[in-house]
Amino acid sequence: MELFMSIELMGDVGLEEAVLPEGSSKILDEKQSFSNKSFSNKSFSKNSFNIEEYWSSIDQLENDYNISFVRMDFGLPGIPPSKFCIEEHCNALKNGTTAINYPPYSGDPELRKQFSIFLANKLAIECDKNDVVVTCGATQALFVAQYIAAKCNGNGRILFLTPTYPPMVEQCKLLGLQALTLEVGNNRGAGLVDEISAIFEREKIDAICWASPNNPSWVVLDETELQGIAEVCKRHEAIAIEDLTYLGMTDVKMNDGEVFPSISQYYDRYFLVLSASKMLSYAGERLGFLTGSRALMDANVQTNSDVEGGGEGNVRRFSRSLVFNLSAGSPYSAQSGIREIFKLENNGTISLKEILSEYVDRAKRLRGMLSRSGFYEIYDNENPDGFYVCFGYPNMGGEELCNVLIEYNISVLPLTVFLSKRTDGVRACVGRLSEAKFQELELALENFSGDRNNVKCSSKH
Amino acid sequence: MELFMSIELMGDVGLEEAVLPEGSSKILDEKQSFSNKSFSNKSFSKNSFNIEEYWSSIDQLENDYNISFVRMDFGLPGIPPSKFCIEEHCNALKNGTTAINYPPYSGDPELRKQFSIFLANKLAIECDKNDVVVTCGATQALFVAQYIAAKCNGNGRILFLTPTYPPMVEQCKLLGLQALTLEVGNNRGAGLVDEISAIFEREKIDAICWASPNNPSWVVLDETELQGIAEVCKRHEAIAIEDLTYLGMTDVKMNDGEVFPSISQYYDRYFLVLSASKMLSYAGERLGFLTGSRALMDANVQTNSDVEGGGEGNVRRFSRSLVFNLSAGSPYSAQSGIREIFKLENNGTISLKEILSEYVDRAKRLRGMLSRSGFYEIYDNENPDGFYVCFGYPNMGGEELCNVLIEYNISVLPLTVFLSKRTDGVRACVGRLSEAKFQELELALENFSGDRNNVKCSSKH
Repeated sequence: MELFMSIELMGDVGLEEAVLPEGSSKILDEKQSFSNKSFSNKSFSKNSFNIEEYWSSIDQLENDYNISFVRMDFGLPGIPPSKFCIEEHCNALKNGTTAINYPPYSGDPELRKQFSIFLANKLAIECDKNDVVVTCGATQALFVAQYIAAKCNGNGRILFLTPTYPPMVEQCKLLGLQALTLEVGNNRGAGLVDEISAIFEREKIDAICWASPNNPSWVVLDETELQGIAEVCKRHEAIAIEDLTYLGMTDVKMNDGEVFPSISQYYDRYFLVLSASKMLSYAGERLGFLTGSRALMDANVQTNSDVEGGGEGNVRRFSRSLVFNLSAGSPYSAQSGIREIFKLENNGTISLKEILSEYVDRAKRLRGMLSRSGFYEIYDNENPDGFYVCFGYPNMGGEELCNVLIEYNISVLPLTVFLSKRTDGVRACVGRLSEAKFQELELALENFSGDRNNVKCSSKH
Repeated sequence: MELFMSIELMGDVGLEEAVLPEGSSKILDEKQSFSNKSFSNKSFSKNSFNIEEYWSSIDQLENDYNISFVRMDFGLPGIPPSKFCIEEHCNALKNGTTAINYPPYSGDPELRKQFSIFLANKLAIECDKNDVVVTCGATQALFVAQYIAAKCNGNGRILFLTPTYPPMVEQCKLLGLQALTLEVGNNRGAGLVDEISAIFEREKIDAICWASPNNPSWVVLDETELQGIAEVCKRHEAIAIEDLTYLGMTDVKMNDGEVFPSISQYYDRYFLVLSASKMLSYAGERLGFLTGSRALMDANVQTNSDVEGGGEGNVRRFSRSLVFNLSAGSPYSAQSGIREIFKLENNGTISLKEILSEYVDRAKRLRGMLSRSGFYEIYDNENPDGFYVCFGYPNMGGEELCNVLIEYNISVLPLTVFLSKRTDGVRACVGRLSEAKFQELELALENFSGDRNNVKCSSKH
């Protein structure tokens, strides 16, 4: 059964109203002498599951009972933002004119330039700064990309490769479009392309949208797959939307060097979405990027609005206009900080690759621990290392596993939260796995494993 | 003829491509020995008018020819942001955890609390912090309010009181809804209510949306009008969306003291939209607020999404969910700065009223100057003083007046940019009118006036 659980929000949740998975209350009371607080009986498997409520209920458990979980539930960066970035950001606030003035609606010109150099280097593509729009996070960039793709092609339908970041699909529905999904599991390579092609044959589709590396699966689409998707898109005049939020946070590279595989190397009608949240540890500041291929940015698009005379504008103008009409631009002072980081990366003063390799190391270590404790990997063992690791435990559902791990002070999320059909898996984020947390985790996993074996043994008696 | 000119954007405009009103080139060349640059022949009266292009072409004129305009074109705050705000913002960046962590999606709880106290004080209403959502500027708040109003009522139609901030209406069109407009000119009081009522009788309307004080007209709807709108809305089960971006920036008050007149005092199904951009001079940082009445926030709304089970969620949850799905929350560190300012205002340490009275003083002074130089006011002379002043000159169109004022190094915008039917008026913003600029302006207006009289005299010969 596929459990679609929407990400939806509730603030200020008191512990009384907190939404821990069913059964947690009793377990926590017994194992950790928690006081007699009552939890509601909402669970992962109900549509009322609310990810922010879940996070804050774990926060509250930690605070109220002075215990410390191994928090792998939230996709939070764990490497502090660069001091150069913070410094420039503060300088802009204190000495600059960015706080009082509206930002240029497409973003600070020098930031767009430095970003375009960065992206061109990472992907070995051409990227014109005039084709870059700074957005309020990758989330806004995805919204703009989907809006425009649907306007360009007019079929009212977008195909998503799942599992994925839930707002990506939610936005499509909010726009009144139909969201089709295709699970990327073991159907990789030419087989995956065939499945995509079959869907395009059946349905008129405006765009295909995916993240690479993927949240949560950490799948990186390879050359065969990208080449195949490019051909399908070309045949059906569809737009490719590639979410590169996690660019640089994995060790994947193509055969010929440091270049990360991207649709932009195979197709000429694409949007790319990037973010300062993970790669630059700037999640709080809400900065992202939308860029498109020259051919797409030059294309005409029919809009509902009076933009550009008779309602026809090119995609470049329209993408800027959307950011203007959605949020009057993106946070201005933060753009100074991020501009500095791209500048330092571009001139070789800092190496994001080196900084971000920390996540790769942590993922390797986590995978080793999981394997030693009897867990299995949900996706191909050949999956690269990086920010997320997905795993299961024999004969347990993913939601059950989440619930039981809470007993061991470990928090993760079931894959069903990410629109996955894999009901047996969970996602763990290595963002907050410090050395101390790794040691706690190792013990906790050994305990879990020991307890499982005892259960198995006692059930044999 | 009503000229609808859309606000739409173009970055990096070279002077060669700059979009000054027709004829400016020749005039500037003659009067100011400008070099032989060629301007395109785009003008205000073409749909291709682009406000960001216009602003940047004036910027470039100033830079390239080392002249300084009296800039009244852009609605930019001119009072520096509070040092307490900047200080707290920087502290959060340097010492806090806000840069690396995602914001709570409805906003920092303490900010929402301080904001709710502030608003309750200013409007003498109840405002629950749980009914406040922090947004990426008032622009995002307006988008969310319109989206929800249309979902609640399902008629696909919103009525706007014009002239107004163009993105307000543009958003409606982007959402695929029909935008109706009603010009608020001299039809005030019961007459205005009758006109609104007549439109509601003719058409099924989801919401009525306006700003008070209004950009550009600076009209503040009075008790009779608000009471009347409340009755019309109640009769037709419509939602009222009141944009209070300029709250506190005028000297209007109701009879019984310091309270500003608002729909929230007369009706129980409303959204209020506020902004840190103007009132707190934080335009660059993109922070705004959406709040709704208890009755509206509790109401059910049918969504396209899977939010809240079967697609039914209450408005409170849905408004948070929209901000999450549009931008994953609002800039986090900036929330610390703004929280501090509301706290200081609420406990009486600072007085926004005192700080913002500067704009009222400037408007009075500007109106005096204009009157002495033969200009007339577009709206009622009883209009309050504040951030914007709208004026015309006998026998000149608004666009013509803009063009001619450029000769005198004065930049303003024609009212048609703001969807006004008044083709004879322009909007001036006092935000950047420093003492030095006032002196330049006085001379320039005298020159303008003298030249006009000469023209008149010579045409009599």
